[in-house]
Amino acid sequence: MSDMYPNSTIELLQRHRSVRRYQPTPLQREQIEAILTSAQMASSSSNIQAYSVIGVTEAETKKRLAQLAGNQAYVEQCPLFLVWCADVYRLREASLLQESEAFHINTECFITATVDAALAAQNAAVAAESLGLGICYIGGIRNNPREVSELLKLPELVYPVFGMCVGVPAHSPDKRPRFDTKAIYHEETYRHAGVREHIEHYDEVMERYYQNRSGGTKATNWSQGIAEKFSRPVRPHMRSFLEERGFRFT
Amino acid sequence: MSDMYPNSTIELLQRHRSVRRYQPTPLQREQIEAILTSAQMASSSSNIQAYSVIGVTEAETKKRLAQLAGNQAYVEQCPLFLVWCADVYRLREASLLQESEAFHINTECFITATVDAALAAQNAAVAAESLGLGICYIGGIRNNPREVSELLKLPELVYPVFGMCVGVPAHSPDKRPRFDTKAIYHEETYRHAGVREHIEHYDEVMERYYQNRSGGTKATNWSQGIAEKFSRPVRPHMRSFLEERGFRFT
Repeated sequence: MSDMYPNSTIELLQRHRSVRRYQPTPLQREQIEAILTSAQMASSSSNIQAYSVIGVTEAETKKRLAQLAGNQAYVEQCPLFLVWCADVYRLREASLLQESEAFHINTECFITATVDAALAAQNAAVAAESLGLGICYIGGIRNNPREVSELLKLPELVYPVFGMCVGVPAHSPDKRPRFDTKAIYHEETYRHAGVREHIEHYDEVMERYYQNRSGGTKATNWSQGIAEKFSRPVRPHMRSFLEERGFRFT
Repeated sequence: MSDMYPNSTIELLQRHRSVRRYQPTPLQREQIEAILTSAQMASSSSNIQAYSVIGVTEAETKKRLAQLAGNQAYVEQCPLFLVWCADVYRLREASLLQESEAFHINTECFITATVDAALAAQNAAVAAESLGLGICYIGGIRNNPREVSELLKLPELVYPVFGMCVGVPAHSPDKRPRFDTKAIYHEETYRHAGVREHIEHYDEVMERYYQNRSGGTKATNWSQGIAEKFSRPVRPHMRSFLEERGFRFT
């Protein structure tokens, strides 16, 4: 353990990098077990545990998921691809089991299930990294959520929030700089005043980072990327997809 | 480290309990710094870092938040109360800085910001626990989100996803049983068949757990709690609240 960090867990958290090249070594059953049971110990809203995980190891399924996620090769290459789903289906089954007539689905229900999935996934990510494995979150799974849901046979009221590659890393990526902690942390109340200055400062940091990485060919910064990204609706199919799966936004 | 766990980080994750009684000891600046910088190292969708954290230590504000969250005393008692917010305001500011005309807000945008906040928060929870601190997620912050937003001076396009108590524990709670790992983990595709059996099994586990905790007076199980909870719309104000804050669900 380095003296830079108060303990080995914090050192592990601080050393996180998204891994995008994997060795073909399959995961051991004990590794998967440790990752999943750690995920399950994350907090859950009123203990509803409103998530499910699909573990994909079959080559054909990973290949198809890689295509559906925007041709991300590491989705195919990683030995284990986890699809983290918000799962309200299990809650409705529990309600039906009790012969309860009404089951109310709304925006709040969507939030709690999505958050439950995310908290469990992040515990899984930390557990995997503690075992020397690398991970990469794949939001691209929402590019074609209908096809992903069909492929994985997801029932109504279950949606894929994101994927996660897991495996032994085959490269060691650099740290991507983050915002100044002062930019994301506000003492007592939200400080509106400093937001632009923090963005401008981070833009300079990221401009240097992109230039270094690209050997001087990529001249852009963070806010240019953000402006470009949100100049069009991102994944405009999500609302109608979610309603097809039974979610409601009342 | 116990021999039960492959390493000390997994042991830490598995020993998580929600802490609902705190000693008054204030957090040290280095502890807060370690928690926040660990939070920041969580993955973020396309590096948008769409979250902010409000750290509340003032007694009056904590007291008011405790009331707004449904009279949860530990919100007032804990030395540091973190309010984790999805923050799209910073993204729009970045876009305005680039003089970009259009900024598209939709369901996808809501999902990415909510997930970003959750991943960062879970890293913070793990970091805090590694320092010997206890935490408790407070979804009750969404009981009165308008008042919370006003109190914390949240701008448009920022919403409080959940709160988090942080402090030195003053009790050591029992482990709350989770679903069988097989109930939440599906190999290759979602298994519809076993869902009811898993619920019935967990109902038995939880019935025993509640009876033990209550000295035999609480006769209920998990699915009864779920059926009861969702028999009415939970927090039905969320959609209109979020739209008031500028979020859109197109």
